[in-house]
Amino acid sequence: MGKFIIIGERIHCISPVIKKAMEERDPEPILKRAREQIAAGATYLDVNIGPSEKGGEDLMKWAVTTIQSACDNIPLCLDTSNRKAIEAGISVYNRTNGKPIVNSADAGDRIENIDLAAANDAIVLALCSKAGISSDNDERMGYCQELLERGMGLGMEPDDLWFDPLFLVIKGMQDKQLEVLDFIRQLSDMGLNSTGGLSNVSNMMPKELRPIMDGVMISMAMYCGLTSAIANPCDARLMEAIRSSDVIKGNTLYADSYLQL
Amino acid sequence: MGKFIIIGERIHCISPVIKKAMEERDPEPILKRAREQIAAGATYLDVNIGPSEKGGEDLMKWAVTTIQSACDNIPLCLDTSNRKAIEAGISVYNRTNGKPIVNSADAGDRIENIDLAAANDAIVLALCSKAGISSDNDERMGYCQELLERGMGLGMEPDDLWFDPLFLVIKGMQDKQLEVLDFIRQLSDMGLNSTGGLSNVSNMMPKELRPIMDGVMISMAMYCGLTSAIANPCDARLMEAIRSSDVIKGNTLYADSYLQL
Repeated sequence: MGKFIIIGERIHCISPVIKKAMEERDPEPILKRAREQIAAGATYLDVNIGPSEKGGEDLMKWAVTTIQSACDNIPLCLDTSNRKAIEAGISVYNRTNGKPIVNSADAGDRIENIDLAAANDAIVLALCSKAGISSDNDERMGYCQELLERGMGLGMEPDDLWFDPLFLVIKGMQDKQLEVLDFIRQLSDMGLNSTGGLSNVSNMMPKELRPIMDGVMISMAMYCGLTSAIANPCDARLMEAIRSSDVIKGNTLYADSYLQL
Repeated sequence: MGKFIIIGERIHCISPVIKKAMEERDPEPILKRAREQIAAGATYLDVNIGPSEKGGEDLMKWAVTTIQSACDNIPLCLDTSNRKAIEAGISVYNRTNGKPIVNSADAGDRIENIDLAAANDAIVLALCSKAGISSDNDERMGYCQELLERGMGLGMEPDDLWFDPLFLVIKGMQDKQLEVLDFIRQLSDMGLNSTGGLSNVSNMMPKELRPIMDGVMISMAMYCGLTSAIANPCDARLMEAIRSSDVIKGNTLYADSYLQL
């Protein structure tokens, strides 16, 4: 087992600072967040440019080259519903430190992002859902199989599909948490990679509780075999949970300095 | 599933303050720790009087009546290798809020503590070990079966045997951690109760790391089905992990105030 992979989530156009920087092609606010996340332990950085129906191709190219050239070709996760923008980003992407990740495919409208990843030798985040939240793990597994078969049929390695069970919000779906964890175990038993937007579990909780709940959930999910998460590496408590879980799982060797490694 | 049960570990003669209070029959230092642990969320309190080969019967009787009379008959876990002292403690024990717990039996020299628990309608902590650390889960399960059969043969309910896998220290036995967790899952799959001295995992780690590692380990162990632990309820981070795990498992309903409940 390798170390847990953190896809840093903080370069996201939902942030007014990042949105403005993207519009104005101002590198510094974006690079600041890139460097902070890398220093905190991010393996990949997610670059979310929103739908960007107009100008998305130029914007993604600019973001990819700006971040990679300033940050030692950190590998990136290209996050937009604009497929042409993802392709444009990949066209300028430097693979020295890892393949690009396509964020994301599902078994519904976004299934062709599997094809895009296959055609470009990319990793793809594959959501185990079609329209809305899957009602149970049988449904999730059906979509997983469909996405896996499509990717493999196009020549992808199974390792390049990272399956996302979709973490669900505790406030409203408390009774679904063990089901999601059980699905992660199923993916792990099949030898598949997995990921997800972890912080969804603590959505709408008081701010001070979120790192606590996220840290416990990631510990359980890592025990179940989750191999990566889209998360905020600058959340110290979350990173403590991830690094401790890596030690318990034997993904990293224990040293008294393990939280700093 | 019920809420996780915390057996507060802080009334222990290894503490000089507690040792002295026990020798001098001075209630206050003991009651202070009792009240602190109850306020912090302990369900049971462990009362460890050490081997107490001389005078153990009197000491345990005094400790049980002193603590129970001052603390609303909080249920207790009677912890000593002196079997007669445990029997003496049970003879004055008030069962209003729960049966006494005998701490502890194993499949070796202490197997007769099963008989003691059976004869006194008590719960018993049953260590899945004989002499030293079990080499694998087959060995642990062999002892579990032996202890379970002995207890049931004497008329005990299976629920009254709380099986202890023995948590192992990460510094030295890092590669054994998943094995212990897997054993907890086996116990849980069999419908058995379980417990253990959790903080052993972080033994010899720098002090500031221990609550972090303990909190992650308890999250994973609770996911695996651990039903109780002998732990320090005054460790706020550990309690946050336990209460968050209870929410994720559905043992308690989520409320924004769940950490205070």
